[in-house]
Amino acid sequence: MFSFDHLVHGGDYNPDQWIKTPEVWDEDMRLMKLAHINSATISIFSWALLEPEEGVYNFEWLDTIMDKLHENGIGAILATPSGARPAWLAQKYPEVLRVEENGIRNEFGVRHNHCLTSPIYREKVQNINRMLAERYKNHPALKMWHISNEYSGACHCELCRQAFVEWLKTYYHNSLDELNDAWWSGFWSHQITDWNQLSSPKERGESHVSAMKLSWRRFVSDSHISFLENEIAPLREITPDIPITTNFMRTYDGINYQEMAKHIDVVSWDNYPYWAVGKDMDEAAEAAFNHDLYRSIKGGQPFFMMESTPSIVNWRPVNKIPHPGTHTLTSIQAVAHGSDSVQYFQWRKARGGHEKFHGAVVDHCGHENTRVFREVTKLGKDLEKLSGVVDGRTDSKVAVIFDWENMWAIKYYNGYNNQHRDYVKESVKWYDSFRKRGIPVDVISMDDDFSKYDLIVAPFLYSFKDDTEDKIESYVKNGGNFAGTYLLGVTDKNDRCHLGGFPAGKLKDVFGIWAEETDSLPENMHNKAEYNGKEYSVDFVCDIIHAQGAEILGKYSSDFYAGMPAVTKNSYKNGTAYYIAFRNDADFALDFCDELIKDIGITSDSNIVTEENVFIRKRGDYIFVMNFSGKDTTVQLDKEYFDVLNGKKTDGSVALPVYGYMVLK
Amino acid sequence: MFSFDHLVHGGDYNPDQWIKTPEVWDEDMRLMKLAHINSATISIFSWALLEPEEGVYNFEWLDTIMDKLHENGIGAILATPSGARPAWLAQKYPEVLRVEENGIRNEFGVRHNHCLTSPIYREKVQNINRMLAERYKNHPALKMWHISNEYSGACHCELCRQAFVEWLKTYYHNSLDELNDAWWSGFWSHQITDWNQLSSPKERGESHVSAMKLSWRRFVSDSHISFLENEIAPLREITPDIPITTNFMRTYDGINYQEMAKHIDVVSWDNYPYWAVGKDMDEAAEAAFNHDLYRSIKGGQPFFMMESTPSIVNWRPVNKIPHPGTHTLTSIQAVAHGSDSVQYFQWRKARGGHEKFHGAVVDHCGHENTRVFREVTKLGKDLEKLSGVVDGRTDSKVAVIFDWENMWAIKYYNGYNNQHRDYVKESVKWYDSFRKRGIPVDVISMDDDFSKYDLIVAPFLYSFKDDTEDKIESYVKNGGNFAGTYLLGVTDKNDRCHLGGFPAGKLKDVFGIWAEETDSLPENMHNKAEYNGKEYSVDFVCDIIHAQGAEILGKYSSDFYAGMPAVTKNSYKNGTAYYIAFRNDADFALDFCDELIKDIGITSDSNIVTEENVFIRKRGDYIFVMNFSGKDTTVQLDKEYFDVLNGKKTDGSVALPVYGYMVLK
Amino acid sequence: MFSFDHLVHGGDYNPDQWIKTPEVWDEDMRLMKLAHINSATISIFSWALLEPEEGVYNFEWLDTIMDKLHENGIGAILATPSGARPAWLAQKYPEVLRVEENGIRNEFGVRHNHCLTSPIYREKVQNINRMLAERYKNHPALKMWHISNEYSGACHCELCRQAFVEWLKTYYHNSLDELNDAWWSGFWSHQITDWNQLSSPKERGESHVSAMKLSWRRFVSDSHISFLENEIAPLREITPDIPITTNFMRTYDGINYQEMAKHIDVVSWDNYPYWAVGKDMDEAAEAAFNHDLYRSIKGGQPFFMMESTPSIVNWRPVNKIPHPGTHTLTSIQAVAHGSDSVQYFQWRKARGGHEKFHGAVVDHCGHENTRVFREVTKLGKDLEKLSGVVDGRTDSKVAVIFDWENMWAIKYYNGYNNQHRDYVKESVKWYDSFRKRGIPVDVISMDDDFSKYDLIVAPFLYSFKDDTEDKIESYVKNGGNFAGTYLLGVTDKNDRCHLGGFPAGKLKDVFGIWAEETDSLPENMHNKAEYNGKEYSVDFVCDIIHAQGAEILGKYSSDFYAGMPAVTKNSYKNGTAYYIAFRNDADFALDFCDELIKDIGITSDSNIVTEENVFIRKRGDYIFVMNFSGKDTTVQLDKEYFDVLNGKKTDGSVALPVYGYMVLK
Repeated sequence: MFSFDHLVHGGDYNPDQWIKTPEVWDEDMRLMKLAHINSATISIFSWALLEPEEGVYNFEWLDTIMDKLHENGIGAILATPSGARPAWLAQKYPEVLRVEENGIRNEFGVRHNHCLTSPIYREKVQNINRMLAERYKNHPALKMWHISNEYSGACHCELCRQAFVEWLKTYYHNSLDELNDAWWSGFWSHQITDWNQLSSPKERGESHVSAMKLSWRRFVSDSHISFLENEIAPLREITPDIPITTNFMRTYDGINYQEMAKHIDVVSWDNYPYWAVGKDMDEAAEAAFNHDLYRSIKGGQPFFMMESTPSIVNWRPVNKIPHPGTHTLTSIQAVAHGSDSVQYFQWRKARGGHEKFHGAVVDHCGHENTRVFREVTKLGKDLEKLSGVVDGRTDSKVAVIFDWENMWAIKYYNGYNNQHRDYVKESVKWYDSFRKRGIPVDVISMDDDFSKYDLIVAPFLYSFKDDTEDKIESYVKNGGNFAGTYLLGVTDKNDRCHLGGFPAGKLKDVFGIWAEETDSLPENMHNKAEYNGKEYSVDFVCDIIHAQGAEILGKYSSDFYAGMPAVTKNSYKNGTAYYIAFRNDADFALDFCDELIKDIGITSDSNIVTEENVFIRKRGDYIFVMNFSGKDTTVQLDKEYFDVLNGKKTDGSVALPVYGYMVLK
Repeated sequence: MFSFDHLVHGGDYNPDQWIKTPEVWDEDMRLMKLAHINSATISIFSWALLEPEEGVYNFEWLDTIMDKLHENGIGAILATPSGARPAWLAQKYPEVLRVEENGIRNEFGVRHNHCLTSPIYREKVQNINRMLAERYKNHPALKMWHISNEYSGACHCELCRQAFVEWLKTYYHNSLDELNDAWWSGFWSHQITDWNQLSSPKERGESHVSAMKLSWRRFVSDSHISFLENEIAPLREITPDIPITTNFMRTYDGINYQEMAKHIDVVSWDNYPYWAVGKDMDEAAEAAFNHDLYRSIKGGQPFFMMESTPSIVNWRPVNKIPHPGTHTLTSIQAVAHGSDSVQYFQWRKARGGHEKFHGAVVDHCGHENTRVFREVTKLGKDLEKLSGVVDGRTDSKVAVIFDWENMWAIKYYNGYNNQHRDYVKESVKWYDSFRKRGIPVDVISMDDDFSKYDLIVAPFLYSFKDDTEDKIESYVKNGGNFAGTYLLGVTDKNDRCHLGGFPAGKLKDVFGIWAEETDSLPENMHNKAEYNGKEYSVDFVCDIIHAQGAEILGKYSSDFYAGMPAVTKNSYKNGTAYYIAFRNDADFALDFCDELIKDIGITSDSNIVTEENVFIRKRGDYIFVMNFSGKDTTVQLDKEYFDVLNGKKTDGSVALPVYGYMVLK
Repeated sequence: MFSFDHLVHGGDYNPDQWIKTPEVWDEDMRLMKLAHINSATISIFSWALLEPEEGVYNFEWLDTIMDKLHENGIGAILATPSGARPAWLAQKYPEVLRVEENGIRNEFGVRHNHCLTSPIYREKVQNINRMLAERYKNHPALKMWHISNEYSGACHCELCRQAFVEWLKTYYHNSLDELNDAWWSGFWSHQITDWNQLSSPKERGESHVSAMKLSWRRFVSDSHISFLENEIAPLREITPDIPITTNFMRTYDGINYQEMAKHIDVVSWDNYPYWAVGKDMDEAAEAAFNHDLYRSIKGGQPFFMMESTPSIVNWRPVNKIPHPGTHTLTSIQAVAHGSDSVQYFQWRKARGGHEKFHGAVVDHCGHENTRVFREVTKLGKDLEKLSGVVDGRTDSKVAVIFDWENMWAIKYYNGYNNQHRDYVKESVKWYDSFRKRGIPVDVISMDDDFSKYDLIVAPFLYSFKDDTEDKIESYVKNGGNFAGTYLLGVTDKNDRCHLGGFPAGKLKDVFGIWAEETDSLPENMHNKAEYNGKEYSVDFVCDIIHAQGAEILGKYSSDFYAGMPAVTKNSYKNGTAYYIAFRNDADFALDFCDELIKDIGITSDSNIVTEENVFIRKRGDYIFVMNFSGKDTTVQLDKEYFDVLNGKKTDGSVALPVYGYMVLK
């Protein structure tokens, strides 16, 4: 479905801000070619210009831009402008504006300030999208649709309340009895006896029913998806061959991206690691995790890195400039992990507005004689040499489960340790242990196929879906290796506890353990556990478990449960189930993963030898070697390779400068 | 008035949450007997089940539970369900829902989200209470009424505003002139010229008049009491012999418990110390203080510990499991200090809902083979051996004044040190100095009888009632020993300053001092004072006083007032008045109390010798020895005792394990 | 225009709070004379007393006070009472109350809770002011009008929204096209197509358009000024010879005081340094800066210190008592820097109300036998000896630019370092470097005349007005010395970036540099720069600049831009332009200023030798020597002087005790 035979190099381009100085447009074309840019994402926030008053359209400027792009060999990723409505629309139809929890309707302003339910807004969005599709359906520059921009937020208006009630009726099979059971309404006398008693959860109303909050999250996420489907409909009809994307934001929890991904052709996401402030390795690991999440989300299909900055952003409390070279390394990492694009927010800094100090390829000075422009240009040239990477895949025998539904359940439950739940951080920690060993990892949901993996790690998988217990049992029964951690499968999809003790149901047999209690540790208190003769720190929570058949690999060595099992391993039918009863640090994770790797016989994608902070990743036939270590280093090649970027053969010990990278074949 | 001849052992029991699985009810009965439970508090949040739609009632399930309890020898403490209204009630009568300061009415949700004034809500509550009383008035299981649950909060609706205005008319004798004087309305031109100009204090209205805030606090507290009286009316009428309680929350400042206690038969409170996080001694001291507060609040009459957890709670940021044994020790401490019950929230963990991870006797596993269940069972047996303690009293010759009106005044005044006023902590500190010496202390209000005490300590008694100045003078004149601290009697009940210098009026003579200024110390600044040749830390505030007749016991030794009096003693007629001009630490408090104890000749209740962190308390004929020290210890008995729990005589040096306790006779 | 031939010594006097105890009034007169008080500021919050119901007036009490003051030789500064409206007015005309951003109207309460636009409120204010003026126009006690009190805040009601729209129409010449350009509305599709689409900026509406926020700030400031003009109109008409003031609050950013100052005769401000908590030097420096700001704001004309406390305030988190002597030193500093008054909030502590614990000359004890009263009396006597100082001026050859419009722009832009922008602190730091060398500094706006200064320092002058670029160029061209720092002139008055690189336009030539990027440093990261062989800390942000003609005086010595210019000097035509590319500390500022002082040949006002923390200031013929060092010290006089306070000649080495001061002639 991709329309590209090369790596896309481009970014958000806002010529509409310079409509009064069209000479800037020509300069843009000159500079884009200079920087080896081959794509521009346009019209993201252009509605007020495209439709300056209701039913009055002005596409001429966009025609010109589309033509110019095409003339200059630059593809257009055309955005639908729903992310920010014109002022006249908010003025004429106040219902399109969001209502906050206090019941007060917002005024016009910012972006994504629209009701997701409003029929009028959906109609107006569909109309402008249809206009765009009709006008440019045959334009040769049109390469892809970019739907809206960074969907987010929610609305609490009466229309949304009614839609939520309808959603609940569907989800709970039109049965208040089922809803009351699911929400355990007997607690605090919250039995619902009329659907109209229901509203969105809020501090000034119902704020203490986690199952209701989960329902709301699901409803809001489904509203975004249905809003997206409404936007897409005319595009699918008029331009059936143009692929559709929308851009995701890291692991934003307002939308279940694992669901939304099913509704678009290409997944894209916005990648903004925070370099140069003393946590480069964490940032590199999280970026890698997110890349693999979005690679895995559509079964290994390449994704787009829709946004990144060539220098700084403007929205952090402090926006330190990354070390020169970081930008190119960040971009190459994306490609190594499955991105078919390197795209920027933004091409040119705006003169005014909220993001005028956000980094761009072209600065306010307006010319190309800047460090940033030179780096972008160098990268553009490198990307051209890597077109063979396009559509390349990576095979993983290891998966880490990271699931939006579980993320929500973790957010909303109340008890044990209410601080620092850090689900994302936990997931990245386990992911990164394999990364350090050069082992590619898929990041999957509870719904994905388990059977193709040799090992599945499920960090903090607190809440199950209907079939999760069975899926895990079946996976292990059939020879799989499954590692779970503390608070595994405590609740069902309505955040109701599984009765009969933890882990849920038959998993007590699968893991050969029973968790009697769960201790929680304040930030400044650490327990200890011993594993393989080494002592490790214990944080956050620790299950106090009894081995009932499992082999004890590690034990607590402090507090009143010292001597009780902390790490277990259980042979169950043809497979093995591991349990880590406590929140461990990266140190333990790495040591434990080394054991798993050895036991199970998982192998790395390459035999290139280097240090831990040099990332190695194979994609298709290409091996990417990326120096995130913050210093010059050397890499020991195991055989002769072709260095794609310098076009030479290479072997032996190769120097890799700080922030440098190689692509080998 | 008590219906019990044994110590009550039980807790909150919510069979209504398991109405679809009545086999759980039978299992509950089996387990309760196993755990030596003899009481269950039921129907606390059952309204929606009892009255599923307006005027339609369903008591059958409760009949069954009442019968089962009785059949199994378990008494019922029957709750009125006003704490959480059914959804249909909120839907049909929105006026029952609270309005926040912003004027926006809440939606249905959580609990205690009802207007205290609403006539409809009061009517509906009285009706369901009447139904309960009529139905169970002759049921043999019925032992006590538990009114609502943890009353709290306030409402800012128009009905409440009008009720507040009426309250003000009464309090200020229908005179705006009196109100304007009391509120010192000339400041900022706030003279009220029409009662309808008045509203509740709020950030978006009047927020700077402390006398008005005090009025509002009094009104809200009185509203709770009148709401309670409304609830109680049918119960008093129909079941005149069944005692009535409602549960208090530590020193919650939303209700004047010293007033509310007058309206119920038995005081009960919910005790949740936070153990095992490095502040066990502070928690034990505060629990002891609260027990003695609620013992003193009805003149020494035993109270109930209505809630406690057998393991953890779910509502702290982090819920560390206490060391095994802590639970039983916590429970015995309550009994030692005057509780006739040990009750839990909760009997069985809910499957869902906000408190599903709150500790319970029965966990989600559903069986009795848990550490927690075993501890509860052991305690149940011990309590059975202690029925002789029921209704036992403790005589105190020392009182600490802790007064709700003063707590409010301290909260609302503006000036000097606006941080860390810590009235409760201050009171506990002084209380605990006597506790460490084995001397029982009553915790009394400004309104209580002073004359029965040899010594009264009044920490931070900033605000006086109309007769407080006279009461203190008269107490000392007649031979009493009175110790006051900084900022003593600065304002009257309307938070107006006493004119003519501090302490107020004739207290300058009683104490023989005059306080010219009051210094305040930021958190990181400490002054020093010298007393008895030792130097002590000075914090928070310090009065700069002149001795006018008083003996100077201690002086400041730093800052520009070094050398000025910091601790004084004054003989006034037949008594003595002490003044501690600064906020001192526990070190000073203990040394100073030792002097007072010696001077006045106050004696401990026992001559048993042990370390400070082993608490000793005599109740009736029983001496409780409780090891809070966190380690094994020994206790030196002064004579032969009967050890009630092991049924043997004992003397000499006795080992007491960590968290252990003995009850001697 | 001044009516005074002596230094004013007085303060806020609220006899209206004691109207029921007129004997207090007589005692006030006795005490005022005792304390050498010659002025009283009255009726600030007396509206409810003056007009107890609509159209019913009660001036008798004020007549009495005016008469008593006059009989006792005390001048009256008569306040207009608009700061707090009577309850009846809010009750009858709710439109006078403010509306918050959420659209909810406030209730009656506190002060300055009125709509600035409301025609009714303006009418009522003008009416009561007219009544006052008519009544006292010929009263001999009347010396000055004090308009309202500490104007502040804003209102978001519909009337204010409409007024804002009208203001925008005027500011943007009735052209939406101009507004859209100015606000760069193309960003996020925010083109305004109908004036009625506009509203005040707010979180729940438009919150991300800095140009709009600047417009709102200007509008609110102009509303205050127009409100003031409305108040003043009858006074100007009826009492044309009575000077008019209103009191400013440090560098409060809600009102452009540099504009408001043009509308009053005498500037006054409220001075509350926070002494004795370990930052005396910072407080003394900031007080000095503020004094010079308000001296410069009307071209060197003396101002009034309208409020100060003789002891403590009540509104800080902690209100430490300053060391005895601090009060008199604080007061003398004000006079030294141009104040013709020392005035207190407050004369007598109120019995109740929000400020009852705010320091006063007369405490609750009511008598004169206090440390504070004695200090005030001593000062009163000293001030009487200094009447020759009245109207004395100070000549400055150095100016620091501190501009309200720039302060707003710094507050609202988004990007680079979003934390700790600290514009005031930056300005004080540069100001204080000259102060330490005894060199008087004017604190001016971008609009003031540059030509009279030998040196202008412009710290963090991020945003320019239309003519600022030209003014700087022209100043340097004509021989001026101009020192700018990082982010100089980045944006125009609509916060739109200057295109073509920074600094703006021709300033690249003036400074001989080009700033390519700007780095930002998190709080815990510091870079380094080398200047004159010494290494300095680099914080907050640093421009990465290229010298294009400028001499490089200092270089960065860390991070990837080590070796690049950090401090430059450029000869431009007849003048010199210096650029400090980074945020420096006080250490660098002092060293750099020493170079400037030497290079340019700036001289101190006196040759008296003492330590840095003894402040020396010449006003008229008087030299003030003030010991802020916190310890006893000595001062080396360069010649024989007349010591005005002790009436003796003095020379040589003179001892100056801690917090002591001398005034020499």
